[in-house]
Amino acid sequence: MPVITSKHLYSKEDTICAVSTPPGKGALAVIRLSGPDALSIATGLTQLPGNKGRLNDQPANTLHFCNLMDQNQLVDQVVVSLFRAPHSYSGEDTVEISCHGSVFIQKRILELLVREGARMATAGEFTMRAFLNGKLDLTQVEAVADLIASGSAASHRVAINQMRGGFTRELRGLRDKLLHFTSLVELELDFSEEDVEFADRTQLVALLKNISAVLEKLRDSFALGNVIKNGIPVAIVGKTNAGKSTLLNLLLSEEKAIVSDIAGTTRDSIEDVISIRGIHFRLIDTAGLRHTDDEIEKLGIARTWEKIDQASILIQVVDVNSDPDELTRLRNQIHGSPGIADKQWIVVLNKTDLVSPALMKQYSEQVARIFHDGQIIIPLSARSGSNLPDLESALIKASGALNTDENDVIVTNVRHFEALEKSLAAIHRAYNGLQGGMTGDLLAQDIRESIHYLGEITGEITTDEVLGNIFKNFCIGK
Amino acid sequence: MPVITSKHLYSKEDTICAVSTPPGKGALAVIRLSGPDALSIATGLTQLPGNKGRLNDQPANTLHFCNLMDQNQLVDQVVVSLFRAPHSYSGEDTVEISCHGSVFIQKRILELLVREGARMATAGEFTMRAFLNGKLDLTQVEAVADLIASGSAASHRVAINQMRGGFTRELRGLRDKLLHFTSLVELELDFSEEDVEFADRTQLVALLKNISAVLEKLRDSFALGNVIKNGIPVAIVGKTNAGKSTLLNLLLSEEKAIVSDIAGTTRDSIEDVISIRGIHFRLIDTAGLRHTDDEIEKLGIARTWEKIDQASILIQVVDVNSDPDELTRLRNQIHGSPGIADKQWIVVLNKTDLVSPALMKQYSEQVARIFHDGQIIIPLSARSGSNLPDLESALIKASGALNTDENDVIVTNVRHFEALEKSLAAIHRAYNGLQGGMTGDLLAQDIRESIHYLGEITGEITTDEVLGNIFKNFCIGK
Repeated sequence: MPVITSKHLYSKEDTICAVSTPPGKGALAVIRLSGPDALSIATGLTQLPGNKGRLNDQPANTLHFCNLMDQNQLVDQVVVSLFRAPHSYSGEDTVEISCHGSVFIQKRILELLVREGARMATAGEFTMRAFLNGKLDLTQVEAVADLIASGSAASHRVAINQMRGGFTRELRGLRDKLLHFTSLVELELDFSEEDVEFADRTQLVALLKNISAVLEKLRDSFALGNVIKNGIPVAIVGKTNAGKSTLLNLLLSEEKAIVSDIAGTTRDSIEDVISIRGIHFRLIDTAGLRHTDDEIEKLGIARTWEKIDQASILIQVVDVNSDPDELTRLRNQIHGSPGIADKQWIVVLNKTDLVSPALMKQYSEQVARIFHDGQIIIPLSARSGSNLPDLESALIKASGALNTDENDVIVTNVRHFEALEKSLAAIHRAYNGLQGGMTGDLLAQDIRESIHYLGEITGEITTDEVLGNIFKNFCIGK
Repeated sequence: MPVITSKHLYSKEDTICAVSTPPGKGALAVIRLSGPDALSIATGLTQLPGNKGRLNDQPANTLHFCNLMDQNQLVDQVVVSLFRAPHSYSGEDTVEISCHGSVFIQKRILELLVREGARMATAGEFTMRAFLNGKLDLTQVEAVADLIASGSAASHRVAINQMRGGFTRELRGLRDKLLHFTSLVELELDFSEEDVEFADRTQLVALLKNISAVLEKLRDSFALGNVIKNGIPVAIVGKTNAGKSTLLNLLLSEEKAIVSDIAGTTRDSIEDVISIRGIHFRLIDTAGLRHTDDEIEKLGIARTWEKIDQASILIQVVDVNSDPDELTRLRNQIHGSPGIADKQWIVVLNKTDLVSPALMKQYSEQVARIFHDGQIIIPLSARSGSNLPDLESALIKASGALNTDENDVIVTNVRHFEALEKSLAAIHRAYNGLQGGMTGDLLAQDIRESIHYLGEITGEITTDEVLGNIFKNFCIGK
């Protein structure tokens, strides 16, 4: 991958090209060409049919079936999409060449474009141009990357909202409020010698309180945003023979069946992440929990407790043939672990196919007496897959916190989270200063700092390092 | 993959959809929708900006940036390409949706299209529509598949020529000649009672001779076509320690470096095929040749001789420290093998870095005396890679037969080859019959059979089985 230098980052002089479709062989591939010479380079390489004239003479936003030529040699019959600045993704003149999806042809066309004066685009460089040309702010840029990476309905929805500018609007609202605050303070500064208080202190305090409430809500949404982006952590615990692995495979294979249902799509396989009705769950398998003197096994069990600690949802798998006394012990052990009150706790009674209905009834009653603190109890057979839908519904229910309002802004990006924290810290300093009789100029300085960090999020204020970090995670061709 | 039934094959009533770009995640993906309801389905799912109206009202061959909606929910911001029948690849109304390249989004859009009445396309079904709508004949259909599979300049050139209809034009020429022949014969039949010979027998014989010459040239081009498509077979032979494997790796690694040169492209790795200046060579490694009593080793050596038999080019690797007497024996052994006269024979003097220039000179002279039947002799060091360009040039030179005229029609398809053979056999029967005084009606029957087989090639005459075989090798989305 080419190294992004700040010269590349900020230059809009080069005409850049790249394959924008996934790598490999397919029915068709799209090669994108953007920059000041995009139209002239493409015009030189294409032959339009009949008396249509040259590509350069065609109107914007049109499609052209044509021959792509290397001198007199036909390289491919292609469809060319013609966009003119500023009405393109990058905001520049752009030509997209839809060619036959052979790797050989893709390579050949890139070589021709480079020969005619374009250069290979770096990762995310088309999007960088869109940013430089004011088509997207930085939160929207990051949303594009998130959108491409999104693998669940929830993460997709958050990324789409952010791409539409929802987050930016929220930040602009905050910025306006902060500017209003400084205008009040600065009015006072202008008349400072007369010792008048134009800005009612109570009003200022109320305004800062209001601003920090909004900032706090945004900052706190990051915990949820992170879960949406990476999946809700679900720890599966239980004794080794309780059927944890069978249950894990059952959950995973269901998912795989759904994914491969539609021909022609594949997914990057992320081990042990499943999606149920659009919500991602990150399944964490654990070592069996039991009393042991074996040192190595003790280490494994210690790790299990760590994993339980990280999980939002706990699935405890119970063999319906196991001893209820032991079950009571384990329940008490888990119940006493720190943070358990914040977790959803699902008890799966497994191997129901191996006991009679009468015994099952009796066992269920015992279990209900043991687990009496709001645990959800689901009998099923991991081997036969019976009652799996009940478990899936329980997981969806347990993830209830995710059912946010469609238009709620949710912060999913650690960079945004950190900037929000810094912005909020400045607000808190101003708030405390206001209470302690801090002078207007010092107040104004804190507020300017707060505005500064908000500007970092949208990219009004940025550095090479920040941009480099954002764009290095992009695909080539975007 | 869906099973192609003949109902699917010939139906143009369904509107079909598929992802046409390679599977996986990328900057963008293209989803193709074709058929009678393509425009109405796409119109129902898209929201054009401002006062542009609905998609259905837009002119053909235009591009539209728009929101793709599921009811009131934004699924993605996409660019839609609008084609109207018959001016599209398939010859039908077609919409191509260029979306963000997340697998989740691709799947989501396909689900929406299917929900709104489209169905998933089978492999090659868009191309099948193009065939049914008379946009492509069968040789062009096959050329599309070959083009997507093409991995070398030579195979790409042959496929491009075939896609442009070069082969079809050649076949039409033959067909016209055959029709001219039958018209002469049939004229005679009309006047048969009068026992007149309108068609001068000498003229008829000359005509058939001419036709079979063209057919034979086409048929014989298959040997070359096959080599172009699959690579020129090159057997690398020699004693085990002569450095065959090092040489093989050297040739292969050079190639890999070239292929990975341009970021964003990958290739399906076909083991041991290299491309030098656009020509494919299929490298065949062999067991070391020596006299042995070991039964298993004897089998290995027997296989080596088979591989030598299959190869067009032979690279014999010689360690410059080896005994010239043994070299003479091996040279004589190879020289006596059947078919050797048709092969190009390159002798590589390996390990030149391990001997002094004086010894090297002496050895070269000995070798030149042993290999005196036109073998190309190349000294090099496989370990250091010195003189590799000489070997590459020698391979290119040895493949000289491939330097065909740019516009020569070359048959690469075994189906075409078989039909040409049958067509030619019918011509030969007619020719012999003509010499033996066969009656006009029998002559006409042979000629009709010959025309029939030519029609099978272009697809004027076809069966479900033939179509099924052709399209099952296509990608989904083409």
